[in-house]
Parts: sequence; structure tokens; C-alpha cells
Amino acid sequence: MSKLKKLKSVLVDKIVPAKAMGIDVISWDDDCLTLTAPLKENINDKGIAFGGSIYSLAVLCGWGTVFQVLEDAGFAADIAVYKSECNFMIPSTGEMKAVCYINQAEKMKLIDSFVKKGRGRAFLTVEVFSEGAKVSSFSASYAVRPKNSIGRK
Amino acid sequence: MSKLKKLKSVLVDKIVPAKAMGIDVISWDDDCLTLTAPLKENINDKGIAFGGSIYSLAVLCGWGTVFQVLEDAGFAADIAVYKSECNFMIPSTGEMKAVCYINQAEKMKLIDSFVKKGRGRAFLTVEVFSEGAKVSSFSASYAVRPKNSIGRK
Repeated sequence: MSKLKKLKSVLVDKIVPAKAMGIDVISWDDDCLTLTAPLKENINDKGIAFGGSIYSLAVLCGWGTVFQVLEDAGFAADIAVYKSECNFMIPSTGEMKAVCYINQAEKMKLIDSFVKKGRGRAFLTVEVFSEGAKVSSFSASYAVRPKNSIGRK
Repeated sequence: MSKLKKLKSVLVDKIVPAKAMGIDVISWDDDCLTLTAPLKENINDKGIAFGGSIYSLAVLCGWGTVFQVLEDAGFAADIAVYKSECNFMIPSTGEMKAVCYINQAEKMKLIDSFVKKGRGRAFLTVEVFSEGAKVSSFSASYAVRPKNSIGRK
């Protein structure tokens, strides 16, 4: 299975609302993840994207970045967001595109912490665009724990 | 149409992702709005609620509170979230319940501003519970503008 296909199977196929939103994985370039979502499945009463959908796309983009950094380093972990901020600048009137970039230092810190302690944290920012304009800025802290330690017991 | 039915038609029926999430309007008690969402439509790979769904439920609960306060006062307006924070404490393992309470002072400030300036702001907090425990705390600022001023032109 290709890297993007695997990432999509994790990010979209197993998360019921992400599938309903029509989220797609566009690219992963070692330090930058891009996801999209169509307007149609995420439209509100005003004919623009629902704020909750913009947040969902952004939080998944950060989550997928942490997942892929660990995956590329040969590790599988449980990842969960625990703190987030999301601001909305202008209405999103078309397809949404979320972009998360992780710098080398943050990447190394995350891998190093996971190797040494079996856990870690990542603070990431995500920008969401629509029709060429930035519609939302998002930042969040993610906790990384050993596989199968987060969730339904 | 009953008050709750009208609120549901605005909050859920016209917002495609809110409908997909199975959100329901439980009660409005003059200053407190309660919404729920089932786990099934909002489940992730770990068998718990997706963070984006918890955020979506919370942001709609705040939005609905602003809507209903204005509606009860006889006004129709456009409402949009522009700033938000959402923290997650523990996994949400069952139905989610979001509760937003607006105090009298905040309510009067909002109505007064809308009457005098045709616009206003509201800062609200929402708590989300699952199986008796608080799973998330949310706060957001909402902008209130004259009807049909926000959205697709």
C-alpha cells in the first residue's frame, strides 16, 4: 500500500465523521501534510463551510502529521489532541485545503522523546485555505503515547 | 412549529455535517441550551468520539445559544464564530452532551448591543460530557451581524 493510501486509510476510512466530510489526503512531503475537504459535504445554512468542519479538517491535518513523522521513523503510537485554538478570518466559500508544516527541530524532538520515554508531545499549527485565501488558523498540542494506550479499554 | 423544533431546523437540518453527526436539540431553558450527539456517527479508530465532532457539537451549542437569545427577544441575525479554544480531558466513550449556559448580564449586553448598533459579540463557554464525566471544555467568541450579511454573496 502506498504511503498516501495508508495515511488515508488511517485518517479517513476509520474515522466515521472524516469519511462523511469527504476528506482527502493530497500530499506528504517529509515535513508537510496537505488535506482537502469539499464544500458540499460541509456546507451550512449560509452556503459556506461549517466552522466545525474547518476545525475537524485542521485537527486531522495536525494529527496526520504526527502520525506520519512517527511512521516514517518506524514507530506506531497512539496520538490524541488535548489542547487547541481555532480562529476564523473569512468565510470559506469553496473546497477547503489544510496545510501542516513540521520543522526539523520539532520532528527530532518528537522522535527523540518517543524513543527515550515511549511518549511525547507535539505543538503544531495548521493553516486552512479556500479559493486562494486563508480562512482559518489553528494550533494544537498532541500527546503521543504507546500504541493501544488511548481509547476504549 | 415548537421552539425546539425550529431550533433543530436551524442548527441541524440546514447544516449538512451537523445532520451527518446525528446532533439533537434536547432543551432550551431561557439561558441554557443542551445538545447531544451519538457515538456511532462520530466514532474514530480508537472506538471513542473524534475530537472534531466534540468541537462541532460545542461550537453549535454556543451558536444555538446566541441564536435563541436573539430569537426570544424577537430578532433574527447572522451569527459566526471567530475565535475558539477547545481542550480535551478524557476520551468520550458514549453519547456526547454539550451544555451552554449564558448569564443574564451577557444576555442583556448582547440584546442591548444588537438593538443599539445592529451588531454585537458574545463570549460563551460550553462543557461537553459523556457517560457522566466532563470530556471537553470549550470557549468561543461569536460575532452577531444583521441578517444576510455573513455568507455567500
